[in-house]
Amino acid sequence: MKRISILGSTGSIGKQTLDVVRRNKDKFEVVAISANSSVDLLLEQIKEFKPKYVAVYNEESAIKLKKMIPTDINVEVLSGMSGLKEISSLPEIDVLLTAIVGMIGLVPTLEAIKSGKDIALANKETLVCAGDLVMSEARKHNVSILPVDSEHSAIFQCLNGEKNKEIEKIILTASGGPFRGKSKSDLENVTKSQALKHPNWSMGRKISIDSSTLMNKGLEVIEAKWLFGVEQNQIDVVVHPQSIIHSMVQFIDSSVMAQLGCPDMRLPIQYALSYPNRIVNDFERLDLAKIATLTFEQPDLETFPCLKLAYDSLKMGGTYSAVLNSANEVLVNEFLNDKIGFYDIPYYIEKTMDAHTSIDKPTLEQILDIDRWAREYVASAIR
Amino acid sequence: MKRISILGSTGSIGKQTLDVVRRNKDKFEVVAISANSSVDLLLEQIKEFKPKYVAVYNEESAIKLKKMIPTDINVEVLSGMSGLKEISSLPEIDVLLTAIVGMIGLVPTLEAIKSGKDIALANKETLVCAGDLVMSEARKHNVSILPVDSEHSAIFQCLNGEKNKEIEKIILTASGGPFRGKSKSDLENVTKSQALKHPNWSMGRKISIDSSTLMNKGLEVIEAKWLFGVEQNQIDVVVHPQSIIHSMVQFIDSSVMAQLGCPDMRLPIQYALSYPNRIVNDFERLDLAKIATLTFEQPDLETFPCLKLAYDSLKMGGTYSAVLNSANEVLVNEFLNDKIGFYDIPYYIEKTMDAHTSIDKPTLEQILDIDRWAREYVASAIR
Repeated sequence: MKRISILGSTGSIGKQTLDVVRRNKDKFEVVAISANSSVDLLLEQIKEFKPKYVAVYNEESAIKLKKMIPTDINVEVLSGMSGLKEISSLPEIDVLLTAIVGMIGLVPTLEAIKSGKDIALANKETLVCAGDLVMSEARKHNVSILPVDSEHSAIFQCLNGEKNKEIEKIILTASGGPFRGKSKSDLENVTKSQALKHPNWSMGRKISIDSSTLMNKGLEVIEAKWLFGVEQNQIDVVVHPQSIIHSMVQFIDSSVMAQLGCPDMRLPIQYALSYPNRIVNDFERLDLAKIATLTFEQPDLETFPCLKLAYDSLKMGGTYSAVLNSANEVLVNEFLNDKIGFYDIPYYIEKTMDAHTSIDKPTLEQILDIDRWAREYVASAIR
Repeated sequence: MKRISILGSTGSIGKQTLDVVRRNKDKFEVVAISANSSVDLLLEQIKEFKPKYVAVYNEESAIKLKKMIPTDINVEVLSGMSGLKEISSLPEIDVLLTAIVGMIGLVPTLEAIKSGKDIALANKETLVCAGDLVMSEARKHNVSILPVDSEHSAIFQCLNGEKNKEIEKIILTASGGPFRGKSKSDLENVTKSQALKHPNWSMGRKISIDSSTLMNKGLEVIEAKWLFGVEQNQIDVVVHPQSIIHSMVQFIDSSVMAQLGCPDMRLPIQYALSYPNRIVNDFERLDLAKIATLTFEQPDLETFPCLKLAYDSLKMGGTYSAVLNSANEVLVNEFLNDKIGFYDIPYYIEKTMDAHTSIDKPTLEQILDIDRWAREYVASAIR
């Protein structure tokens, strides 16, 4: 029985994680769940999964939830960052699944690592902002970082039984998002509702916008560097609109291993929880003869400058990736609030990176400071 | 240093094996080579690779070669089946690469297994005719059977770090051969020169014809059953004309692993020799954006009945696969000699299978008897 704590149980990945648990009650137990403020859904999840702990980040929502819980249900309600930290390091858990979106995932994840918990990682920002710190803490505490992202799960599976030193190149596949094939002038005035329409995957709003700018792929490039210990020039992106090949690894002997499947996030979630075993399920099976055609093309870095900026941030090193990410987080939010245009996102990211003075091997405090600085800088820049 | 003996060094796979050795002289040493009768090429290979032994199956050619070898070269020339057996079980070798075509490969391969040599297997007939016997001898003598075929090498690589009991299905890819998309009536009168034109791979004549009838894929289905310990209903064939995905494994959790690469037999040859390591090389790298499109379709069992017959032989079990193979070997030869038509191949295979009385768990002697019977039966049937 693997005992799990979930950061962000009411979001897209959180709900799918609970579906995996629902199908494998003999193998997984949910000890703790958490959300920002979705108390109605949290209450439903408490009733179904009977966790011992629930953490609500928003203090008012925590008070509201406490009042809603029937008296016959025994669950401890925690709140704020201290609540997130507590459910990440419980003695009763084996693994923390971080499905929370944004920089807020970093502190509880580090807390879990220091407590010796394995991490099933769906929070991109953890490695993008603090890859060096997180991976060295993970090594120090002998903790596994198990990717939940479909792309990194694919790479992780391709590396089964292989030697990391025999990796020549990681090839991340990208669907290309809703604007694949468009030119820069086509996209000058796109709206958030156009940007939210992802062709293959059903995802949260932040990730959907990141997918439309290809920043999502840029963040994955950065994550891949840290997860698999390769250099930025060993990571390629190839656009593959059908999202059937989830990513690949090319080895030094020219052999390429790939992981394929129908687009269903429950597979990488389940694999992160079941690794090194596989668990039988009834998820849709791949039928290549039915799909008939898989296509591939180079990513268009001119139309999608966010991907280029992500590579640039890795090349420049230090804390540039953290700045890229924090600025992007603010800008995507502003775009979703109709405050800025589509190309303002890369424009202001670059501006923020230009204004930044990088730090090598930053501490957690320095990373959090830089995050605050970048958010303030970009907020005032767009005014 | 891995010491190698090669059965069939003058054929297509044999020559490519020597090229792999040529590029890795610090890792591989050729102790023995062999051929049926190509003495000129054997002499060249002796001069370049300086093997200790050379076996020539044809006795007259062996005498001829002996006379051709310069006196300053120290090589022992053996002949006949006893020569093949001797170079397969030499104390000085670690691995036998069986690149010989046809039933003739079976006896020396078994000899090598009994002497504890690992087998790099490119001879299809070994497992098709004697899969049960060969695999149980390999287990008994703790010997690895390392596939050299690109498809089985792909599956072998997909199973790296995985558990065989978690295999749901093996998916063999097939180029479809030179007649893909044709109907039965289109193919009634095809000639050997049309059948010899394979779209992707440069191969020997026997295998090229087998590829045009899809018998090649049928034999691979049978081999896959024995190599990977799965049942015939766990092996699918999908036609993939570009031959970029070399085969796949679908696991119980719906995840599919695939191995990809440019069509170059030297990669699976090298992998069989270097396993569990990979060796850096300058073989062409895969560029999916340049290839742009991969396609997949169901195999057409009506136009290509040989593939269906291979599945039938597995379903019927016992020695039916051996009969299928022996009959096919005679019939392909007759087709290459313009003695029979394209569809006479499956017609007479089925007739021979119908006339056969199968034996469960046959011994080597029984398999050799059945081989002789099938050859005689089919030879007299076509007269």
